[in-house]
Amino acid sequence: MNQPFTDLQTRDLQYVWHPCSQMKDYETFPPIVITKGQGVWLYDEQGQRYLDAVSSWWVNLFGHANPRISQVLSEQAFILEHTIFANFTHEPAIRLAEKLVALTPNGLQKVFFADNGSSAIEVALKMSFQYHMQTGKSAKKRFLALTDAYHGETIGALSVGGVGLYNDIYQPLLLDTVRAKGPDCFRCPFQEEPASCHAPCSQFVEEQLKAHHQDLTAVIIEPLIQAAAGMKMYPPVYLKRLRALCTQYDVHLIADEIAVGFGRTGTLFACEQADITPDFMCLSKGLTGGYLPLSVVVTTNEIYSAFYDDYGTMRAFLHSHSYSGNTLACRVALEVLTIFEEEPVMEMIQRKGQWMRALAMTAFNEMPYVGEYRQIGLVGAIELVADRATKEPFASEARIGYQIYQRALAKGLLLRPLGNVLYFMPPYIISEEDMRMMIATAKEAIEQFFHERGEYIG
Amino acid sequence: MNQPFTDLQTRDLQYVWHPCSQMKDYETFPPIVITKGQGVWLYDEQGQRYLDAVSSWWVNLFGHANPRISQVLSEQAFILEHTIFANFTHEPAIRLAEKLVALTPNGLQKVFFADNGSSAIEVALKMSFQYHMQTGKSAKKRFLALTDAYHGETIGALSVGGVGLYNDIYQPLLLDTVRAKGPDCFRCPFQEEPASCHAPCSQFVEEQLKAHHQDLTAVIIEPLIQAAAGMKMYPPVYLKRLRALCTQYDVHLIADEIAVGFGRTGTLFACEQADITPDFMCLSKGLTGGYLPLSVVVTTNEIYSAFYDDYGTMRAFLHSHSYSGNTLACRVALEVLTIFEEEPVMEMIQRKGQWMRALAMTAFNEMPYVGEYRQIGLVGAIELVADRATKEPFASEARIGYQIYQRALAKGLLLRPLGNVLYFMPPYIISEEDMRMMIATAKEAIEQFFHERGEYIG
Repeated sequence: MNQPFTDLQTRDLQYVWHPCSQMKDYETFPPIVITKGQGVWLYDEQGQRYLDAVSSWWVNLFGHANPRISQVLSEQAFILEHTIFANFTHEPAIRLAEKLVALTPNGLQKVFFADNGSSAIEVALKMSFQYHMQTGKSAKKRFLALTDAYHGETIGALSVGGVGLYNDIYQPLLLDTVRAKGPDCFRCPFQEEPASCHAPCSQFVEEQLKAHHQDLTAVIIEPLIQAAAGMKMYPPVYLKRLRALCTQYDVHLIADEIAVGFGRTGTLFACEQADITPDFMCLSKGLTGGYLPLSVVVTTNEIYSAFYDDYGTMRAFLHSHSYSGNTLACRVALEVLTIFEEEPVMEMIQRKGQWMRALAMTAFNEMPYVGEYRQIGLVGAIELVADRATKEPFASEARIGYQIYQRALAKGLLLRPLGNVLYFMPPYIISEEDMRMMIATAKEAIEQFFHERGEYIG
Repeated sequence: MNQPFTDLQTRDLQYVWHPCSQMKDYETFPPIVITKGQGVWLYDEQGQRYLDAVSSWWVNLFGHANPRISQVLSEQAFILEHTIFANFTHEPAIRLAEKLVALTPNGLQKVFFADNGSSAIEVALKMSFQYHMQTGKSAKKRFLALTDAYHGETIGALSVGGVGLYNDIYQPLLLDTVRAKGPDCFRCPFQEEPASCHAPCSQFVEEQLKAHHQDLTAVIIEPLIQAAAGMKMYPPVYLKRLRALCTQYDVHLIADEIAVGFGRTGTLFACEQADITPDFMCLSKGLTGGYLPLSVVVTTNEIYSAFYDDYGTMRAFLHSHSYSGNTLACRVALEVLTIFEEEPVMEMIQRKGQWMRALAMTAFNEMPYVGEYRQIGLVGAIELVADRATKEPFASEARIGYQIYQRALAKGLLLRPLGNVLYFMPPYIISEEDMRMMIATAKEAIEQFFHERGEYIG
């Protein structure tokens, strides 16, 4: 990475402020200029390729520049690109909504469109709040979220997030959210094992529900995986218990399946593994297979009914975005769901999940500094620790993950970490050969880093 | 509109919850299923066409299914649809950022990408706040916005909005925004005329700045037109005065040009007419010519510098969306800006603005119930009033605008009103013939409505 910057890199740094970045880092580690994508691979200006092991922030399902998806997008662009979505509609949105209702858990029956994940969260928060205001429960004004939660970065979404990195500095702007300690299976305070666990840690959320239910409109949760917190995984029993508690305490359950929906966890939606129906399900990311921003909130007819009335009662839900129900994005999403219908995608995820688990367990399980390799569906994560016995974490200032990420990139693997957690969330179409490369290269990058520190004892 | 619902209409109503709608209205006024778009026209299932006089919520600039834009979108889809935008980049984003910096007012030099308008507002609010926190002004925690402002509907954006319809019910969730009475030229309390006005009404915002500047991080404003409030227009002198006041009181100025940017007001950006540079400019809607959700915040190197430091100081701006810097949307936006460069778009807007003004003044100026026809650039608005002499408004419960909208639709004109304000914001490529149809049909619909009420005396 010590080559002089290319013309495009120089221009990028002059004009572009990148997301989720300390731009000063780019002085020594300039942005990689991608010129084309193909399957799991991204190609830069020099023709160097990178295996996109994080599906470009968890959005890509069926590969970059997927010919089937690109074709329908192209065709749609010449027919109808977009139309206002109030009082107007189009077939791609209707068919997409129909499929989403058929595929999401029983009881979810109405689809509200927005255009990014954060906005879907804001819609669910506002709908839940307004529902209670309009059904005589106007004391219900607060939300409950878990520690280590991440739900997006607009003010409402950030208010229910619990990852300090993203929201500490903005505290004066955020809602007063009730916080409950979430599951922490890697460092379980109850010494349970996920396979046999009965979620004793749900007592923390129960305590908060008991104390605050009269003020609470909704609990929001990332089902099965707290992704941005470092792919923290927990068993379905926790979700099942939470659903029961929400019902008991008359509080809505918002399932944020933005990261985990559309097959990531081995079922089409993570909630299926707990056999629950949330009151709101938020979907985005994989919804368009990684092509375009689009999000939806799927909810129940009971919620919908509380807004359905004569205009003059002013009970409508007025939230809109200019591009709500965007025709191009809906057409792409419709094709993504059609691929799920026509191809054995879920079986593919199961099979590749088994490969990944076998390869990763062999590669990482006994490595120094690997606290744990964990996996659900086609999401695998390595948690690096300073001490395997005590699980003592590396200090975040050491930027262990970041440095391994740099080394992996030099070897052609895009493996953007979350603190000390390296994870694999490849497109579903990854081949066995590419998966072997992904696991082997990650291992090499880890080894190289600790060797360079002179600490490697493997 | 009393035909039986089509299959698609029935399915739409079973599954889709539309934005900005009381869904019960759809029982008697079902959603219109658009099957194709061409230029200013949208076509429904029966082949009936509608002139899109509102550019599908103010987004379309160069017509529906524009062949030039569709072509580049199609080509891009087969090359690279999207890549993670942290540490990665691509030529469409770089070239787009470069053009935006060249085109926006002097001093705006860095482009931060998001994917919808509300998110751009949230980014600007958070950046302004964090800037002050990181430059030793941590008392600055509040925002100042005008009455009748609209900046989007996520919690942060809604907090700076001032249109009760959208935010009244959510008050318990919103930030404590300082509010100043904004300009109200139609009912000017100072009896000024826009052409000669020196913005005495800026005293209201000055009073609030004087009282609260130590707590204030930014003032946010829609330059020249408060759009959602009913296309309320005000002269550039107000903006010029506001810029001076913000500088004087050490408060950022956020220009929300989401609705007015890209030529709408007759200049590429509305701020140009006041010859000012805001600290943040938010852009979306027309940025992609009405194709895809994309937004940017353009800001100064001074702001950027306050976040630029060694990683360990934790001063980075971490805000991200999965689809930040989406390649497809950037490629489309780049083509839109290239059209501005290669075609005489600004002259076209000027010329068509003159046509529209001449036609509309003739058609509406002396009509009963027309309080005012006003126009800036290619935005024209008719404010209907119960009494022309006193400017007494119609009661909102009467839904005057909505009923005229229904009648216009039956005549092939899509003219979605804002309360009692009907407006014209057509795609820039509208022909003279279509503009004549637009104005004539609007006039017919207004006349028909008042005739049916038995009140028409024209």
